[in-house]
Amino acid sequence: MAQNRPAVAHRMQFLKSSEIRELLKLTNRPGVISFAGGLPAAEMFPAAEMIEITRRVLETEGCRALQYSTTEGDPDLRRHIAARMNAKQGTQVAADDILITSGSQQGLEFTGKVFLDAGDVVLCESPTYIGAINAWLSYEPRFVVIPTDDEGMLPDALEQALATQPRVKLIYAIPDFQNPSGRTWSLARRRAMLDLAVRYNVPVIEDSPYAELRFEGEPLPALKALDRADLVVFLGTFSKTFCPGLRCAWLAAPNDLLRRYIMVKQGADLHTGTLVQRQVATYLDVHGLDANIARVIEVYRERRDRMIEVLATELPAGVTFTRPHGGLFLWVTFPPQVNGRDLLARCLEDDVAFVPGGAFFPDPGHEHHARLNFSFMPPDRIEVGARRFAKAVRAFLG
Amino acid sequence: MAQNRPAVAHRMQFLKSSEIRELLKLTNRPGVISFAGGLPAAEMFPAAEMIEITRRVLETEGCRALQYSTTEGDPDLRRHIAARMNAKQGTQVAADDILITSGSQQGLEFTGKVFLDAGDVVLCESPTYIGAINAWLSYEPRFVVIPTDDEGMLPDALEQALATQPRVKLIYAIPDFQNPSGRTWSLARRRAMLDLAVRYNVPVIEDSPYAELRFEGEPLPALKALDRADLVVFLGTFSKTFCPGLRCAWLAAPNDLLRRYIMVKQGADLHTGTLVQRQVATYLDVHGLDANIARVIEVYRERRDRMIEVLATELPAGVTFTRPHGGLFLWVTFPPQVNGRDLLARCLEDDVAFVPGGAFFPDPGHEHHARLNFSFMPPDRIEVGARRFAKAVRAFLG
Repeated sequence: MAQNRPAVAHRMQFLKSSEIRELLKLTNRPGVISFAGGLPAAEMFPAAEMIEITRRVLETEGCRALQYSTTEGDPDLRRHIAARMNAKQGTQVAADDILITSGSQQGLEFTGKVFLDAGDVVLCESPTYIGAINAWLSYEPRFVVIPTDDEGMLPDALEQALATQPRVKLIYAIPDFQNPSGRTWSLARRRAMLDLAVRYNVPVIEDSPYAELRFEGEPLPALKALDRADLVVFLGTFSKTFCPGLRCAWLAAPNDLLRRYIMVKQGADLHTGTLVQRQVATYLDVHGLDANIARVIEVYRERRDRMIEVLATELPAGVTFTRPHGGLFLWVTFPPQVNGRDLLARCLEDDVAFVPGGAFFPDPGHEHHARLNFSFMPPDRIEVGARRFAKAVRAFLG
Repeated sequence: MAQNRPAVAHRMQFLKSSEIRELLKLTNRPGVISFAGGLPAAEMFPAAEMIEITRRVLETEGCRALQYSTTEGDPDLRRHIAARMNAKQGTQVAADDILITSGSQQGLEFTGKVFLDAGDVVLCESPTYIGAINAWLSYEPRFVVIPTDDEGMLPDALEQALATQPRVKLIYAIPDFQNPSGRTWSLARRRAMLDLAVRYNVPVIEDSPYAELRFEGEPLPALKALDRADLVVFLGTFSKTFCPGLRCAWLAAPNDLLRRYIMVKQGADLHTGTLVQRQVATYLDVHGLDANIARVIEVYRERRDRMIEVLATELPAGVTFTRPHGGLFLWVTFPPQVNGRDLLARCLEDDVAFVPGGAFFPDPGHEHHARLNFSFMPPDRIEVGARRFAKAVRAFLG
């Protein structure tokens, strides 16, 4: 008997295996130097220390560390996180303001569930983080891209959107060392954006995975630290400062919103792993994060410098790139006639890869960009790869 | 400036902190013997072995075990799971049919996302698992309860619902040692249900956390093992056979559906923790699960027996209960005039607690039941608690 496959939900049509993902499979070919990923440098992860930490947790706490636990998360870990946010990012949050999530991707997904009905508008940077777009697509919002320069969203454009777009539900920003652009919002722009958020009573999702990975310059206060109207939901993670494979992250939200997020978490997966939370909390007890982050910053700074050195001397005129003060990525802009996907095909012939920039815009017409990751590879590979990239760009531009 | 709080999504009105949860907070009072939880016996968790396993994983694999990994899950773990399902539950699945999830709760939540539009119908047992209802509420389905006896859903009633209800999207069942009733579907009912699912082309969600915890009798084939039409999505977990605090579970689905689930997982949290998957896979390499499960079965059987002994001799006439052949729960049915919530209030005066049965029905009018957990407490506490419970019931019934 011939059967039609059973029907799936309407929203599933918006979830597609991305074209980019298919392209990037090619970058796994042996010999390819790939700047396309977004992986931290694995050799920085404290594997040996984690053996000892796990022994300590399981010897001290025994089976409790393997049992179900509360949805909100481990109390010690929530305290550590609140204290660290307050010390490093100028916030004034309490442990009770924190929900532990399974990666910041989960915080993004929950944000979609809490806020977005079909047709609601999300205001985002230009470019913006592809993982947020993917997390929210199934909620069927409209993304409205706010023109953004090296200091953040342009306030006039943001105000224009807030004043004219119906049903604006969220403003989404990555204020520090943005993925993909590497850009950091100035203090003035942070303030201007929050003023507008307050005026229009629109929540702000501050996605902050990179703020502590600053190679130079002074830290700026988080949006959450400047928020006097309880409008900012802050997403933080241990994925870039510690170990991404633990899937341990958090969000800090005003009480009435946190309550909603907790209900969503309860239905989504009950709670983040008990053992992993005890491992991270105990690591923070014993080692803290400062030494680890200092080591990571040293290493990433050198890698960024090496990449910038090559690009600055070898890229042809008319091609520009950002010089991020932290994070994992830099952003190359080509003359407008260049299509990043075609350029990638050309680069793959020379065994070097990147992510074409168009993927980071919910709107069409931004194909002349490339995101390059500098965190993952040792400096000598970065140098070889960046030379290949620049050479391929020169050849492509003729 | 007085501000209204920002608007949340329409679906959030369906997510409420449950009345039951508030009630159950009272059960944490010192001195209360609570049969209300659903926790496995923590003393059975192999904490010492997990120290050694973690050392082995991190010494052998180093930082790879702490890095990002694929959405589908660890290949070794997926192979172990497929092999175990095939050996123990009669299925014929391959590693590629498996998606690793962060607890089966996540498999339920993803099922809502993949299948359910607002107003779609889910056919479920009577009673059914409260966590599934909670996972799906935000997708705004209608739950239609199929009359269910000790052998499973009544086929005539199921057919009636399939024939007359518009937009039936899913049939949801827990065929082995159901939470909350402790009941197990007969082979004939399994077959009858699948025949109807095929006839009406409706997917079946088989939630199977307890099947391997059988204290007596012969195992029955999983619905997935009897499925010849690729309609069954099987949810399995290590939470009851190993350690719930690891949040490590899986689903097995036909290829076209698995692809959808993987896209949902990608947006929801990228992947389940790398280290935790390597820990479980390595535990399975080194120790397997059979010895652990055999120990758990011994312990739970004794606890069930002790509870049943007391209830059989001390509950008054007119009160019946199930005698499950496995799992964690049994189900008490009172005369119809008894309200389980009122009875719980009375029981709390005598320092004993349970979950009132009404919570396990999406439809009203099933208040005269109680779910009792027998896995968590040692037999002597079970005996004391069951005596208190029976005494309170006698007093309540006058």
